[in-house]
Amino acid sequence: MTQRKSFGSDNHAGVHPAVLRAIAGANSGDAVAYGADERTERVTADLREMFGADGGAFLVPNGSGANILGLSVLLRRHEAVICAESAHINTDECGSSERLLGTKLLAVPTADGKLTPELIAGRLSGRGDDHRAQPGAVAVTQSTELGTCYTLAELRKIADFCRASGLRVFLDGARLANAAAYLDCPLAELAECADVLSFGGTKNGAMVAEALIVMHAGLTADVPYLRKQQTQLISKMRFVAAQFGALMEDDLWRRNAAHSNAMARRLADGAGAVDGVEIVHPVQANAVFARLRPRHIEALQQDWSFHVWDERESVVRWMAAFDTTESDVDAFLADIRSTATR
Amino acid sequence: MTQRKSFGSDNHAGVHPAVLRAIAGANSGDAVAYGADERTERVTADLREMFGADGGAFLVPNGSGANILGLSVLLRRHEAVICAESAHINTDECGSSERLLGTKLLAVPTADGKLTPELIAGRLSGRGDDHRAQPGAVAVTQSTELGTCYTLAELRKIADFCRASGLRVFLDGARLANAAAYLDCPLAELAECADVLSFGGTKNGAMVAEALIVMHAGLTADVPYLRKQQTQLISKMRFVAAQFGALMEDDLWRRNAAHSNAMARRLADGAGAVDGVEIVHPVQANAVFARLRPRHIEALQQDWSFHVWDERESVVRWMAAFDTTESDVDAFLADIRSTATR
Amino acid sequence: MTQRKSFGSDNHAGVHPAVLRAIAGANSGDAVAYGADERTERVTADLREMFGADGGAFLVPNGSGANILGLSVLLRRHEAVICAESAHINTDECGSSERLLGTKLLAVPTADGKLTPELIAGRLSGRGDDHRAQPGAVAVTQSTELGTCYTLAELRKIADFCRASGLRVFLDGARLANAAAYLDCPLAELAECADVLSFGGTKNGAMVAEALIVMHAGLTADVPYLRKQQTQLISKMRFVAAQFGALMEDDLWRRNAAHSNAMARRLADGAGAVDGVEIVHPVQANAVFARLRPRHIEALQQDWSFHVWDERESVVRWMAAFDTTESDVDAFLADIRSTATR
Amino acid sequence: MTQRKSFGSDNHAGVHPAVLRAIAGANSGDAVAYGADERTERVTADLREMFGADGGAFLVPNGSGANILGLSVLLRRHEAVICAESAHINTDECGSSERLLGTKLLAVPTADGKLTPELIAGRLSGRGDDHRAQPGAVAVTQSTELGTCYTLAELRKIADFCRASGLRVFLDGARLANAAAYLDCPLAELAECADVLSFGGTKNGAMVAEALIVMHAGLTADVPYLRKQQTQLISKMRFVAAQFGALMEDDLWRRNAAHSNAMARRLADGAGAVDGVEIVHPVQANAVFARLRPRHIEALQQDWSFHVWDERESVVRWMAAFDTTESDVDAFLADIRSTATR
Repeated sequence: MTQRKSFGSDNHAGVHPAVLRAIAGANSGDAVAYGADERTERVTADLREMFGADGGAFLVPNGSGANILGLSVLLRRHEAVICAESAHINTDECGSSERLLGTKLLAVPTADGKLTPELIAGRLSGRGDDHRAQPGAVAVTQSTELGTCYTLAELRKIADFCRASGLRVFLDGARLANAAAYLDCPLAELAECADVLSFGGTKNGAMVAEALIVMHAGLTADVPYLRKQQTQLISKMRFVAAQFGALMEDDLWRRNAAHSNAMARRLADGAGAVDGVEIVHPVQANAVFARLRPRHIEALQQDWSFHVWDERESVVRWMAAFDTTESDVDAFLADIRSTATR
Repeated sequence: MTQRKSFGSDNHAGVHPAVLRAIAGANSGDAVAYGADERTERVTADLREMFGADGGAFLVPNGSGANILGLSVLLRRHEAVICAESAHINTDECGSSERLLGTKLLAVPTADGKLTPELIAGRLSGRGDDHRAQPGAVAVTQSTELGTCYTLAELRKIADFCRASGLRVFLDGARLANAAAYLDCPLAELAECADVLSFGGTKNGAMVAEALIVMHAGLTADVPYLRKQQTQLISKMRFVAAQFGALMEDDLWRRNAAHSNAMARRLADGAGAVDGVEIVHPVQANAVFARLRPRHIEALQQDWSFHVWDERESVVRWMAAFDTTESDVDAFLADIRSTATR
Repeated sequence: MTQRKSFGSDNHAGVHPAVLRAIAGANSGDAVAYGADERTERVTADLREMFGADGGAFLVPNGSGANILGLSVLLRRHEAVICAESAHINTDECGSSERLLGTKLLAVPTADGKLTPELIAGRLSGRGDDHRAQPGAVAVTQSTELGTCYTLAELRKIADFCRASGLRVFLDGARLANAAAYLDCPLAELAECADVLSFGGTKNGAMVAEALIVMHAGLTADVPYLRKQQTQLISKMRFVAAQFGALMEDDLWRRNAAHSNAMARRLADGAGAVDGVEIVHPVQANAVFARLRPRHIEALQQDWSFHVWDERESVVRWMAAFDTTESDVDAFLADIRSTATR
Repeated sequence: MTQRKSFGSDNHAGVHPAVLRAIAGANSGDAVAYGADERTERVTADLREMFGADGGAFLVPNGSGANILGLSVLLRRHEAVICAESAHINTDECGSSERLLGTKLLAVPTADGKLTPELIAGRLSGRGDDHRAQPGAVAVTQSTELGTCYTLAELRKIADFCRASGLRVFLDGARLANAAAYLDCPLAELAECADVLSFGGTKNGAMVAEALIVMHAGLTADVPYLRKQQTQLISKMRFVAAQFGALMEDDLWRRNAAHSNAMARRLADGAGAVDGVEIVHPVQANAVFARLRPRHIEALQQDWSFHVWDERESVVRWMAAFDTTESDVDAFLADIRSTATR
């Protein structure tokens, strides 16, 4: 019996063969450690160019690490961060921002994981009052934790508002590739809306590879020290660089993301047609959020792996990965249909 | 012209072929993320057994991360750490312990990187005085940053003293394999002297793989949360586990370490015989510290990669790795000799 | 023209004459610093007894400082705190808990500033999941920031729930005196519901004097070090002790609190009868929250000092102090009435 | 029998009568809290002028708090601090700088508590290397913890060196008054050598009053938030301001300091002539460090209160205060003489 494809997370998938080949290819002879090797230099220069970043690109092993590092670059010592209540930094990192940066997160409820200038403005009333936490940066996630994407116009409105308000913008791009694929735009157009952003490799076919992109030259001086202090400096860096090298070759990152988006779309289209299944957020990346009857969920979970996102609301999350196939989706859909009325 | 072997660091080396194969072998199908997969379970169970640890083994990507995590398990909120002035946590982590844990390091000068009960006792005078930093743990490094090893007797004396003094023991084992190979003892015998220790894979043939070993069951409850908060939880954990799996197969870790120790020994023996070269620390692991004439250093650095450890003292560090060959050493020695009197 | 009494805050008031006399009385000869003097010993022993505390009483200069210190005693290194969204630690301390303790505050919206077991339970769903912040303590405020008081029964239900759930209870008692006066109960009955609590002096007639009460002997060992580290150890402690000495003499603390409560009650009764004035929270301590027409607020603020609590909701806060007189209240009421319909 | 004057610390003394009168004088009517009152404005403006500070003066209750606040103004997020090993922040604050600021202290051994450009330079070798802690500020203490004073020339050399080296200067002025009295110079001349400094009131006749002086306007914006976050914002601020008001009236601060310096001088002159008593540091402020025979120390401590500074070296510290009298000193001297040969 073959194992069923997991719809639990895009990080349940393995590594893209090209990434694995690149890792193996990097394993010849010595290389200076901690990122001073040629491969890392080349790959980070390529990343910088791809993002149109005047600052630099810094490789780290970890998405949470990239978030913390990125925020630490943007925040003055006493400042707080405005983010969506559903933001990964707020709900999925065990309080890491508060612990490692000492920053308060001013979390805003949103319908679909997306902030707006109005929602941000609602958190600014205490500015200048030394009793209130002082927001210094806004953290947006693209694509969001709810599988939605900001349009470029939406992002630009946020960026404009923030600049006018003296707020810096951090973009959590753990799944930025999915957004770029969905919006069919260059990464640089998304990056323009941020001061610092992360670019995720791990969820998109890499093994352990994330990048922090710093858009402005004036923001880079402290990054190496912050990265080291925050235990995000990998010694055998060439192997992290190699992963990004593979993802950038012929835009593999975009092809992987476009594919997983398409698989999520296929799944949503099929499941949405099933009686008793409601797709609860626009499917704009590689995640499908669906409301099912509790007994339906239970039945499906016997054979398939996925997360119950909100038990009270009976909402599940299904994620597609770079290696999810049409037949994986179709097999899942068949079971979604067959278990729908059990 | 072939590239000359680097004697700069054991992390200039690549990855052992068996480790690379294990990574590739782990890349089939899906696996639950964040360490809940079978491979990680199996490997951590094996590590636990190998170390005789009642607590558990926790995989992390990073040596500095392992140190921070380990200390965080042992320290009460207000406590400080006693360590050697030469300790990696004190000199090579950009102030990470202070930044991420808020702990003061009470650093003690040592001749050879090794603490003793007497040196530790010298830092205890302020206990019970609320104006003084209160030491709660002692951090030892085995093998040390100066290429020396504690004997088992020395470690046990420290452990006994610490237990009698209400101090916990953290052992930084980034190069524990080299110590175990030098002392020709099981890892468990070394581990008995600590409450929590790290076990380094990266410098010994792995790519990005370190383990935190918690000896007592009572100390494990918080580790998963601390690891996540400290951004040391890798999502595609199976690939970290696979690296340790390869290192443990037929004790590859010990063979790698014994080999690099032997290469350092060969280098020290040869270099020590050269006029104007003085080996300044006992060579008990894979590092050689030597005093050379400044012009000799300069001449050698034209062709060879290594660190000047102490410019004022004219001391250099040469490190051997798992893949350093006898002919690498001999070629280096030939140049050490030929440049000695230039 | 005489100055009008401020209804802005109970800390706009000066110091009770008895407190001032006690400070002057403490100023004879030398006294050991940092709390090792006899007066401090006597006063803290008295506080301990008054609260029925097996642990101890620790004097600090600052209410925010007492909160941070209290939480630091209760939290394990990685833990978070459940509190009401309106809690002082969440809204009025500039993010101090996050900055100094690194703890995430899991804030719960409440109608009246009061938590319940149900509200607390709603924040426990992520326990045991290492991606989620782990609540370790619940912070309640008595009397609350909204001028309400938990009944003893309500507090006990919270305490029972927390104990059953492995949560510790911190009670922010910056205005505990007002609650004890309102409930007409001993402080010890309130204290029984907490593991650690603060007891405010400053807002109740003192100058700069707060106390941290630790209920269990097992929790006291680290407090002196935590207090010193957190810059809350005052050198000339006898003068802080003297203030509490004065407040405890003939229960001055209770008389002060009962009086300010009565003045708030008088104000609420009078104002509530005015057309267009709505008292929005039960008046159970020394604060009155009232909704007025915006033009009414504006007119009143020409002559009187008080805070607009919620501009959007057109809600103001009026506070009475130990030295607010009936004629102060009546003069204010007269103006509230005369400006009501302007 | 009259109580013998304590030579234990200048904070064993009470409060100067003028300070007490000023506190009482401030106790009339209401005043806006948290430093927005007129008295605080006036006093901080006066402080600013006295120090020639373009930035501002900020009142806090606590010397350790002033140090932490001052460093937090000067340090970038990742930076470390160079200080003398004997610095109060390093030895006497229970690790507060590390805990609250996360900063590493790079402590330098000194003979007399005084840093020099050469000593500072010795800690700069790792700049630009992301593995090493990066010094961003230098902390000097004036007068030092060893009772010595930097000359103005010495301070200026440090200031020049630091500015040329991109280091900011923090001056711990808990006993700055004693230095200004010793050097007979305006406070502004001392302040010119620092970017931020503290000015202690508590050890010089106040009750609970320290000031942070920020020399440059560009450094003040964050101070109010940092002060509040660090729990150093006192609500009834007028009473702290009143203390400084009293100290500044007719330069009471200088008279108090000059007097305590003179008493220390008298004590040192007398004791230094006693056989078996060696004055070990120049007596330039209000502290005397003396080496005595252990039995001599023991005999003296039967009747007199003072600290053994270094048990191994048999060195004691005697401190004079603003209220130490000539007859206090002479009585002590008589006993020093009479117990010298017991």
